[in-house]
Amino acid sequence: MAPGSAKEKNGTRESSSNVSVHNPHLDSMKNDILYHFNLGTATHDLPAMFGDVKFVCVGGSPWRMKAFVQYIAGELGLADPKEDFPNMCVGTDRYAMYKVGPVLSVSHGMGIPSIAIMLHELIKLLYHARCTDVTVVRIGTSGGIGLNPGTVVITKQSVDATFLPRFEQVILGKTVVRGTDLDGDLAEELLQCGKDLDSFETIIGNTMCTMDFYEGQARLDGAFCSYTEEDKQSYLREAYAAGVRNIEMESSVFAAMCNLSGLRAAVVCVTLLDRQKGDQLTSSHDVMQSYQQRPQMLVGHFIKKRMGCPALERGCCKQ
Amino acid sequence: MAPGSAKEKNGTRESSSNVSVHNPHLDSMKNDILYHFNLGTATHDLPAMFGDVKFVCVGGSPWRMKAFVQYIAGELGLADPKEDFPNMCVGTDRYAMYKVGPVLSVSHGMGIPSIAIMLHELIKLLYHARCTDVTVVRIGTSGGIGLNPGTVVITKQSVDATFLPRFEQVILGKTVVRGTDLDGDLAEELLQCGKDLDSFETIIGNTMCTMDFYEGQARLDGAFCSYTEEDKQSYLREAYAAGVRNIEMESSVFAAMCNLSGLRAAVVCVTLLDRQKGDQLTSSHDVMQSYQQRPQMLVGHFIKKRMGCPALERGCCKQ
Repeated sequence: MAPGSAKEKNGTRESSSNVSVHNPHLDSMKNDILYHFNLGTATHDLPAMFGDVKFVCVGGSPWRMKAFVQYIAGELGLADPKEDFPNMCVGTDRYAMYKVGPVLSVSHGMGIPSIAIMLHELIKLLYHARCTDVTVVRIGTSGGIGLNPGTVVITKQSVDATFLPRFEQVILGKTVVRGTDLDGDLAEELLQCGKDLDSFETIIGNTMCTMDFYEGQARLDGAFCSYTEEDKQSYLREAYAAGVRNIEMESSVFAAMCNLSGLRAAVVCVTLLDRQKGDQLTSSHDVMQSYQQRPQMLVGHFIKKRMGCPALERGCCKQ
Repeated sequence: MAPGSAKEKNGTRESSSNVSVHNPHLDSMKNDILYHFNLGTATHDLPAMFGDVKFVCVGGSPWRMKAFVQYIAGELGLADPKEDFPNMCVGTDRYAMYKVGPVLSVSHGMGIPSIAIMLHELIKLLYHARCTDVTVVRIGTSGGIGLNPGTVVITKQSVDATFLPRFEQVILGKTVVRGTDLDGDLAEELLQCGKDLDSFETIIGNTMCTMDFYEGQARLDGAFCSYTEEDKQSYLREAYAAGVRNIEMESSVFAAMCNLSGLRAAVVCVTLLDRQKGDQLTSSHDVMQSYQQRPQMLVGHFIKKRMGCPALERGCCKQ
């Protein structure tokens, strides 16, 4: 069961999981300004705006998160996918946020610090809005190891550049280590969605989360490179032996922060290339576009199943 | 003298500093795709597009970097500032890039990984374009310590969360430590520009570069906070004693990578608040906007001086 409280409602026992903040200072604040969202508790009615959110999908690119909300609006039959959904973070260009029904779609930029700022403010937003039973999924792109490009990897554990499942957070100059496990049941549920769709390869594996895209991922094509092709291949072989199947730059802090706040969380990334065969993306624009849609399709199917989409149950829903 | 080579030209000795990459693999690549810029050596004539670049200004926000190119276009009399400068990274939403004359303006997002990706590709771009004598300035926002909000801080050294001037880069799973000093002469030159303008306070100080905006900067208003107000104040006092005057999230890797590639580099950030007095930004929108323009004005004045703007020499240039 997801972390949270169990309560009685209408005579039936219902499990309800609240979003936890661990900050005694927050409740004494008259106005909590979520600066990078350009939202705040005194300026916006967060429970009215966000209280019904059950699914949050996050990804690096603002464009892709807008495309996702349009896609899911059409899949759920909640709005015309060609509608121009307004960006709820209007007035800032740090992040973009879109909502349709119970689904929130938020961009997070690239790298651990960027997604961490977004998650601090997202968790506070969900807390202030008194949301319950929220599932958060990061949909993204990644480099693969030993996989066909286009394979979708659901993360079991996020590991660091030494293949250990941990995230180091510096607080008051001292390092605190946090765990990076992701929800096993949710990962299996998502894997089943991949099987249901049966239109691309989906696996569960470990994901390496790095602080850098070039030297940090053993690429040979950065501005600096002090190692050989053989050094690179040897490092990627070690990663594969440790269970790593893909490499990206946000999953560790995402797992750590969702764990701390009691959010059920998953990471679903498509691999754009096999890093053992090269570093640069040479597939056509159209192929890349189709790969990038796969995590969206998988998570869209998952949300439809969770919401008990009647068309899906009759087996006639568009997949 | 800036790092580089000295060469004879037309009988006079001229100092010319090239942009260095340290990657023997690059020269054997037929097409170097600068993926996050959506530019490449086979698809774009980089020397024709960028060969004349002498000043690169980088900052987190795409909007602000567009505003900067418009501002500098007007200041240098190179174009109408109301012109809609095209984004040269069209086709991607990872970064935005604008150019007018010898000035390039590029956004870098938030945090070390995001700016590091941009810098790898920027350094390769300047190298492929055969640029010489390039100065790179990060203009940004920051939290201040013991300063009036609105003070502009020019960074002497970028220090980590333990106040040490270093940047740790993980390569093949092993940690490499790089230096984070910035160009002292350039910092003094920029300080003099602040004195010339005489319209806001400008100082030179150390800048703390953190991986996180909330717990990493001892804020009390994140989703998580395990320390007291007194713990926070004690940490900020220690930082001040170590020479830290402001806190941001990109300067350490910026200093390290510019050093490695022989680029003269500076960090010029305005402080939006005094962190000893609070964590949230409570100033009005207009006040914030005016603060954010200060690094642009300072660097605009610096570029005009460097280019020997005749109006400036006559003392009648708009400041």
